[in-house]
Amino acid sequence: MKDQDQLKDSISNWLQEHRTEGTKLLQRLVQAQSTQGNEAGAQTIVIETLTKMGLVLDVWDPDGKELQTHPDFASSKVHFDGSPNVVGILKGTGDGRSIILNGHIDVVPAGDSGQWEDDPYSGKIVDGKMYGRGVTDMKGGNVSLLLAIQAIQALSISLKGDVIFESVIEEESGGTGTLASIVRGYKADAAIIPEPTNMKIFPKQQGSMWFRIYIKGRSAHGGTRYEGISAIEKSMMVINHLSDLEKIRNSRITDPLYKSIPIPIPINIGKIEGGDWPSSVPDLVKLEGRIGVSPNETMDEAKRELEQWIENIGEVDEWFVSAPPTVEWFGARWHPGSIKTDHELVASLTENYQLVLREEPIVEASPWGTDGGLLTNVGKVPTIVFGPGVTEKAHFPNEYIELDNVFLTAEIIALTLIDWCGVGNVSINKKG
Amino acid sequence: MKDQDQLKDSISNWLQEHRTEGTKLLQRLVQAQSTQGNEAGAQTIVIETLTKMGLVLDVWDPDGKELQTHPDFASSKVHFDGSPNVVGILKGTGDGRSIILNGHIDVVPAGDSGQWEDDPYSGKIVDGKMYGRGVTDMKGGNVSLLLAIQAIQALSISLKGDVIFESVIEEESGGTGTLASIVRGYKADAAIIPEPTNMKIFPKQQGSMWFRIYIKGRSAHGGTRYEGISAIEKSMMVINHLSDLEKIRNSRITDPLYKSIPIPIPINIGKIEGGDWPSSVPDLVKLEGRIGVSPNETMDEAKRELEQWIENIGEVDEWFVSAPPTVEWFGARWHPGSIKTDHELVASLTENYQLVLREEPIVEASPWGTDGGLLTNVGKVPTIVFGPGVTEKAHFPNEYIELDNVFLTAEIIALTLIDWCGVGNVSINKKG
Repeated sequence: MKDQDQLKDSISNWLQEHRTEGTKLLQRLVQAQSTQGNEAGAQTIVIETLTKMGLVLDVWDPDGKELQTHPDFASSKVHFDGSPNVVGILKGTGDGRSIILNGHIDVVPAGDSGQWEDDPYSGKIVDGKMYGRGVTDMKGGNVSLLLAIQAIQALSISLKGDVIFESVIEEESGGTGTLASIVRGYKADAAIIPEPTNMKIFPKQQGSMWFRIYIKGRSAHGGTRYEGISAIEKSMMVINHLSDLEKIRNSRITDPLYKSIPIPIPINIGKIEGGDWPSSVPDLVKLEGRIGVSPNETMDEAKRELEQWIENIGEVDEWFVSAPPTVEWFGARWHPGSIKTDHELVASLTENYQLVLREEPIVEASPWGTDGGLLTNVGKVPTIVFGPGVTEKAHFPNEYIELDNVFLTAEIIALTLIDWCGVGNVSINKKG
Repeated sequence: MKDQDQLKDSISNWLQEHRTEGTKLLQRLVQAQSTQGNEAGAQTIVIETLTKMGLVLDVWDPDGKELQTHPDFASSKVHFDGSPNVVGILKGTGDGRSIILNGHIDVVPAGDSGQWEDDPYSGKIVDGKMYGRGVTDMKGGNVSLLLAIQAIQALSISLKGDVIFESVIEEESGGTGTLASIVRGYKADAAIIPEPTNMKIFPKQQGSMWFRIYIKGRSAHGGTRYEGISAIEKSMMVINHLSDLEKIRNSRITDPLYKSIPIPIPINIGKIEGGDWPSSVPDLVKLEGRIGVSPNETMDEAKRELEQWIENIGEVDEWFVSAPPTVEWFGARWHPGSIKTDHELVASLTENYQLVLREEPIVEASPWGTDGGLLTNVGKVPTIVFGPGVTEKAHFPNEYIELDNVFLTAEIIALTLIDWCGVGNVSINKKG
């Protein structure tokens, strides 16, 4: 048996032996219901875990007043009191490459609970799957990170480089948590974010921004609706027009990393609101949506393209010449991210994936923005997104994760940390 | 000069001489801002006017508790305390036909005030037009009624039949005011409602009902929107499907009274609301709208047709087979109304219109429901809708009325009251 195989087996065995504890930790994190503003309970569990692991702890509430002056601050909130960021550092012995392991603790709202088969925060396990809002996006990934570090510690492997574990808030609302960690000075030679990628390796990530479009109509009595102009009918034209822009933008994407993704950079209309009386022709509709930003363009380029596209909508329907829709950018935004596909961390992750799973990993571009964009573009830390969650279940009712993948990901990441950070001493404790 | 011409001239002269007072009364009523729940101020002005005229007064707050047991009660409110109905009776000398003169005092909300060139309740007069929410729908008509009675009184004409003037609340929200008048026992041999018809005579009126439709989608992350089903996209299909139903329903309308109306019985989508997060595929949309009901169908028939049409939407898109939209009926509804076109009141109004304006009136079907449906179907009082307001400006920003038409309508109605109710003595007081 080769050394690398032996190391792999030791880690694998340790993870196998600690499956119950890992599963229980994930379940507790899901049940903590850490929607925006309610992260404290889940962070307390993280703090407790990091304390047991003996990591150097740093816990702080991001300072909205300071952060809002940063050009990349993108939250509609300004106060984050009671919503701490948590960092735990495993200090290296020196002379190794450092790494940030970043995962967000916030989860999106559960939505219509009638569409869930169980309580949205049950953490119930059925057929090897754990269910609950946030289990896949991305508490499963966070647990993989913690297990990877625990396995290395348990096997008494001393890494040369620092491992900086970050449990951040506000990823779902624009990345204030990761921005706060960058501003606080956390830096490393590379980073991994275990967002739900179905264990695909994402060296590139789609960015995204939120827009709001107001569409005007002209009110009239519903009984003579032909005397008015329905802002609802006009909003359908705007939605169709945006769908044409989506086609054009996506036809330009030739990067092979996107080859299996039906719509690499989608435009999603997430919210609509208009009219105020059933018997009146509606005179105003508000749309809110998200535009995906390609790793090959800047956020400003994407912004300008959408704005100009909407400015030209008069060509679609004359009404818009006299009543042009207005576009606003608001709330969250996520930078696109990109790391060279021949980067050493990509190579290491790929090799260890093969070692653990005996097959080639899929290397793709992510269909959504993550904090990887901020880490790469603002923090200057080359970042890969790779995690155990089920992409299709993120933000969905009945969100779940395959528990096996949480432990397989932990194994791959542990091996990658050893490669990347380097090892001072290797004395594998076979008892685990 | 013939007697009828002489009578016409006397009435015309009196109205001419009292133009300032009539205009001032209308202005005060507009400025009273009598939106739903805020009718008391305007009704106080009506009470003051009726008191000066020496009519027998009846003022009461409709009893929601009692009315809600009535099968035709259609309000979402139950308490009408502080929102009085006002009735004033000009007792006849006996042996004549009675008439109800009904007008609503409530007005729809002003909407986006940015679309108004002036304060929505200014009552400002420019080029013979008075502006303001409710001036056309229908305070101008109400003032025509009051002026018609005042002219008859001033000329010392004693009518044989009773004239029952009703200033009612809640027409815009389903007719609780008129229903309350019916339940209180007010009946007559015929009725006129001076809603804004552009001085067209409407022997038939469209009814209407409010519906709510819920359209389901399936949530997903906006970055992989192709994994979800957008309830907003699906709601567009529902709107288009309803537009097809509108075409079918209108293709059946052959009544010549509808020949100049582009869409005799429209389906209006007045309100849309859906989704809750820009980065999520929306899983629920709510539509609210109004369906016009033809005078040749019952409200139940129209209801069933819309419900069945929505039930069949699975033929348009398979998604609806597994997730059928649900339909609810709520809030207000207005019965359609119909009076024979050869009814004596139609003939009288037509003749007096010709006498005053020296041209043929347009006799049509109304494009909207009024309290005429309630009066005709529930109160069993044959009703004509005929008034001075500008149809196209009802429920619009910058609503206005041509003041001349308020006085011409008053003249036509005064002459019609004399025809219909009969005269005990005619001694025209030429001083007016």
